[in-house]
Amino acid sequence: MISVEEALARILAEIHPLNITHVPLADALGLILAEDVIAEEDIPPFDNSAMDGFALLSKDSRPRNGNPPRLRVTGGIAAGYIANHAVEEGSAMRIMTGAPVPPGADTVIQVELTRSDGPESEWVEILQEVAPGNNIRPAGEDMRTGQTALQRGTEIGPWEIGILATLGRANVPVIQRPRVAILSTGDEIVDVGEQLQPGKIRNSNGYLLEAAVRRAGAEAHRLGVARDSVESLREKLTEAISYDLIVTSGGVSVGDFDYVKDVMQEQGQMNFWRINMRPGKPVAFGRIGDVPLLGLPGNPVSSAVTFELFGLPLIRKLLGHSRLVKPQIDVIVEDDIHERAMRRHYVRANVEWRDGRFVARTTGNQGSHIMTSLLNANALLIVPEGGITFNAGDTAKAMMLNWPEVEI
Amino acid sequence: MISVEEALARILAEIHPLNITHVPLADALGLILAEDVIAEEDIPPFDNSAMDGFALLSKDSRPRNGNPPRLRVTGGIAAGYIANHAVEEGSAMRIMTGAPVPPGADTVIQVELTRSDGPESEWVEILQEVAPGNNIRPAGEDMRTGQTALQRGTEIGPWEIGILATLGRANVPVIQRPRVAILSTGDEIVDVGEQLQPGKIRNSNGYLLEAAVRRAGAEAHRLGVARDSVESLREKLTEAISYDLIVTSGGVSVGDFDYVKDVMQEQGQMNFWRINMRPGKPVAFGRIGDVPLLGLPGNPVSSAVTFELFGLPLIRKLLGHSRLVKPQIDVIVEDDIHERAMRRHYVRANVEWRDGRFVARTTGNQGSHIMTSLLNANALLIVPEGGITFNAGDTAKAMMLNWPEVEI
Repeated sequence: MISVEEALARILAEIHPLNITHVPLADALGLILAEDVIAEEDIPPFDNSAMDGFALLSKDSRPRNGNPPRLRVTGGIAAGYIANHAVEEGSAMRIMTGAPVPPGADTVIQVELTRSDGPESEWVEILQEVAPGNNIRPAGEDMRTGQTALQRGTEIGPWEIGILATLGRANVPVIQRPRVAILSTGDEIVDVGEQLQPGKIRNSNGYLLEAAVRRAGAEAHRLGVARDSVESLREKLTEAISYDLIVTSGGVSVGDFDYVKDVMQEQGQMNFWRINMRPGKPVAFGRIGDVPLLGLPGNPVSSAVTFELFGLPLIRKLLGHSRLVKPQIDVIVEDDIHERAMRRHYVRANVEWRDGRFVARTTGNQGSHIMTSLLNANALLIVPEGGITFNAGDTAKAMMLNWPEVEI
Repeated sequence: MISVEEALARILAEIHPLNITHVPLADALGLILAEDVIAEEDIPPFDNSAMDGFALLSKDSRPRNGNPPRLRVTGGIAAGYIANHAVEEGSAMRIMTGAPVPPGADTVIQVELTRSDGPESEWVEILQEVAPGNNIRPAGEDMRTGQTALQRGTEIGPWEIGILATLGRANVPVIQRPRVAILSTGDEIVDVGEQLQPGKIRNSNGYLLEAAVRRAGAEAHRLGVARDSVESLREKLTEAISYDLIVTSGGVSVGDFDYVKDVMQEQGQMNFWRINMRPGKPVAFGRIGDVPLLGLPGNPVSSAVTFELFGLPLIRKLLGHSRLVKPQIDVIVEDDIHERAMRRHYVRANVEWRDGRFVARTTGNQGSHIMTSLLNANALLIVPEGGITFNAGDTAKAMMLNWPEVEI
């Protein structure tokens, strides 16, 4: 049996980001940028007005004999259009927010600081003196031609999408989204829609893992259930090796019908198959052919928890993320926890920010078959190997499952 | 102008969760459960073994004259099958993890605490006395028939999907996913793939908002760009009223070409159109016909920030969530911030957990056209109305944009 840390290190040592591909901008959400993005234009592309108002020469805004100067209005510029003449001394042009500043003008005064005869007025009075550059957004103030606007390795969120759109990137170089095959194993497993016969249970892991894989940012494909025979497993795994990753549940323990390890040894390579933790000691990792296989336990809680600890970082590394794991923080436990197990225990808990500190409450019966212990759990309390006693008020480490990932 | 809080309250007062629909289990991820889910069976459905081992009568495990008792092995039960005979005194059956406990047996001993003649052995020696119920997971220990397994209003994550699968729910009653129309406005806007002509900029808001709407859990549909005319806007909005929500950007300021407000007043009802904040004063809310319309500003940063403050809670309420807004926490600011604006200012910042506290650093030029100020921003520092000076080391409120939402 190896430690959780060693297991994760061994997995990540074998996993590398997938290849680069180009996707339409709208499909890049959540993926990792595979190349630096260099601005090929200044952004904004031209000096433009930050306000609705008038473009003029700043020196024309100076009061004359204590009176507001009155300027001729020679036209208007709406956003999207350019002036067909320059602003000359003694004149001004109406200008809308975002419109290019016309040649000649060196400043813009907002409409609220002027007086005129309505929208068609042929004159405008300037009620306040304004400095050069007032309300003008210079070309290149946001990004300059040649500047690295987004760095390779950046996760593409809505705001990065906005920047890519501004720069005219209709197609984006990204790390491919992993395609993950999900395979449940066991003669006891029937599909969700089926009537339960005696001795049977439903395929909860397949659906749970499909959702978890999707939430991790990968494409999930349920391949159904392999029966408890080497033949059935070989057949399903033959189908699975066209994917980037295979995630199985069940079949990796010491029982007579635990064939996943056997087939891995036969058709690929097994790296490890037991981790010193609970829930979920029997976690296996290796390859079928060249495709990495993560074998999770059959108990639903074990499967759910070990996916968070190993499956999520694995998929994030395939996706090209540098932040792979959920953060750990100190929390105050609100109920007593007595543990004397030799294995490290990840206890499902709900953590809340209350009165300036994080407090944790465990979610009931922690048996690995008690799925209701997953409800309301947003964290895993970490009980170290060898056991420990936490009394209410003690500090413990918690892994925050709904916080953003951090670097290891 | 109304306050941010009043604007949000007015929006939410007009918005109600969408109707109930039924979706296949795998499609329920991220949606809100619309009805309580009652267990119609015990889970687990039958007493089953937690270990690979032997099922026996506990009294048969008592040492005889100091020696391990030797029992006849009358067969085996794999997971998924049921015993065809009972365990009688003096006998045992091999049993696999998850297999139903055979009639007659009241306990299970793990294989490691036995000795036998291999997998086909006709006898087994019991090396440790075991109590009744050992390694048996009783039927109904996780969920009992009639119990409310999941409550209406629960967000369906991977773990809830696992529970629904276990309970055989191939179809799930959920609140419909909102279909959101996204409309950019302005004669200056061209699509991402187009060459920039003088005076034009690209449609960054359409793509940014599409991604943000999707990340909020709704379906996003970009309807393109309405020109700066009442006719063009009417035409686009006629298309948009088949959606559950319309989000526009641009066209809601005081300029000559700001038609969104006008068309809203003509074809529906306008609730408000200015908020005492920046970036993003010109935010409008109302209806076109019966469809709510959220009008965001045209500046990309204003559009991005006001979506987080108003669009996200609005969409989450349509989805049926009870936790609508991003949480606010106290952070230590690491750079000086001097503000004397009358409007509340949401300053883009990066917040990190360092040495037991949250520290915030602003992300540079905070102009509403500076999209690069969005990069690395995971929080909005809140500078109250009227302005304030924060010196490095002072405490400020920050809204955490990548934390899970909380109740208002």
